[in-house]
Amino acid sequence: MSKLRVYGFSVSIDGYAAGLNQDLHHPLGVDGQELFEWFFPTRTFRRMQGMEGGETGVDEDVAAKGFDDFGAWILGRNMFGPVRGPWPDDQWKGWWGDEPPYHTPVYVLTHYARAPIKMKGGTEFRFVTDGIHSALHQAKEAAGNRDVRLGGGVSTIRQYLRESLVDEMHLAISPVLFGRGENLFEGIDLRALGYECTSHFPGKRAAIHAFVKRNGGARIPRSATP
Amino acid sequence: MSKLRVYGFSVSIDGYAAGLNQDLHHPLGVDGQELFEWFFPTRTFRRMQGMEGGETGVDEDVAAKGFDDFGAWILGRNMFGPVRGPWPDDQWKGWWGDEPPYHTPVYVLTHYARAPIKMKGGTEFRFVTDGIHSALHQAKEAAGNRDVRLGGGVSTIRQYLRESLVDEMHLAISPVLFGRGENLFEGIDLRALGYECTSHFPGKRAAIHAFVKRNGGARIPRSATP
Repeated sequence: MSKLRVYGFSVSIDGYAAGLNQDLHHPLGVDGQELFEWFFPTRTFRRMQGMEGGETGVDEDVAAKGFDDFGAWILGRNMFGPVRGPWPDDQWKGWWGDEPPYHTPVYVLTHYARAPIKMKGGTEFRFVTDGIHSALHQAKEAAGNRDVRLGGGVSTIRQYLRESLVDEMHLAISPVLFGRGENLFEGIDLRALGYECTSHFPGKRAAIHAFVKRNGGARIPRSATP
Repeated sequence: MSKLRVYGFSVSIDGYAAGLNQDLHHPLGVDGQELFEWFFPTRTFRRMQGMEGGETGVDEDVAAKGFDDFGAWILGRNMFGPVRGPWPDDQWKGWWGDEPPYHTPVYVLTHYARAPIKMKGGTEFRFVTDGIHSALHQAKEAAGNRDVRLGGGVSTIRQYLRESLVDEMHLAISPVLFGRGENLFEGIDLRALGYECTSHFPGKRAAIHAFVKRNGGARIPRSATP
């Protein structure tokens, strides 16, 4: 069955997944790009940017899988763009140019309706105004047997986690401290929500790739004695 | 010059360094022992317990260095024991039996004065009632050219971090999610306090060993553009 998966999501050692003050020039928040130092040198990222070459190895292996398996994406409004409030016009079409790297339907959560946008290469941005459950339902319908990738940003992932709707999550823990910004974990008891870390391996530039899964939603028993 | 160092300090992926509800039977809080799965199998830990054998390798290498380099320790009251409030008597002498693993003076932060306790093997518990700066001063005096190890617990380390008094910190990030408990990072902007992750390597059972240092106390410049 199609799963909802977070994948290739970068967090700092202290749990931050974006810097503060996102704007047109800082899509990841100020200094947010430091979280993606493992991703930028990969062959997959460079190909996304129309560039040749790039590193192979463990980080590239992880990066490459982030696009192949998915039949639809869900993005928060802020990950789609820096525009806030009602859409002033139809000019903004995402951060990614004419041919975004998704090549699938992409469901964008927003409070403001907008007509779908077909992009080159098969990406179609579809705007969902009736909430995260509706977006998930639509994305799963569109994805068929493939999984749905929950792309972010942080607050969108936190909304889905809080409802235990994320089936699996791959985190790339980057060897940096952020100190402030948007924290993935703060105030969310992932264990109580049924999540556990099921596997992990070191990256090349990412300090660690960690895989978190939902174990059916039951709280993992805590032992009675140490 | 003698440094104040946190070393071998275990945190979960979501930043928790102890479980909740510490008591006589749960010195690390409920389920807190999961954070130390990298440490328990090591030769160093087993020797501390009077046992033979134990694993060698990267986690053991890290564990072994946690005792050799230090000339004094600082512990919070709760790490010394489960007793709260005024000392009812002189019975409680720490969690560690007659011969604790410190073999140095150990400064215990408390609001309640108590005479020093000499233990077998060179450990002497000295109780400090006039605050963290005083404990640090006394510990550095006692340590001479060796470093001072800030043993914990979480709230004690947070107090020293907030004053930028910790020079270096080694964290063993364990591949578990805790969801709740005492969080090392929450509400502390380590970067603003001058800390950065300077190196890291994968452990065997610890997902990663990360080293954090203070760069003189100045805020690390954040870039103006991504």
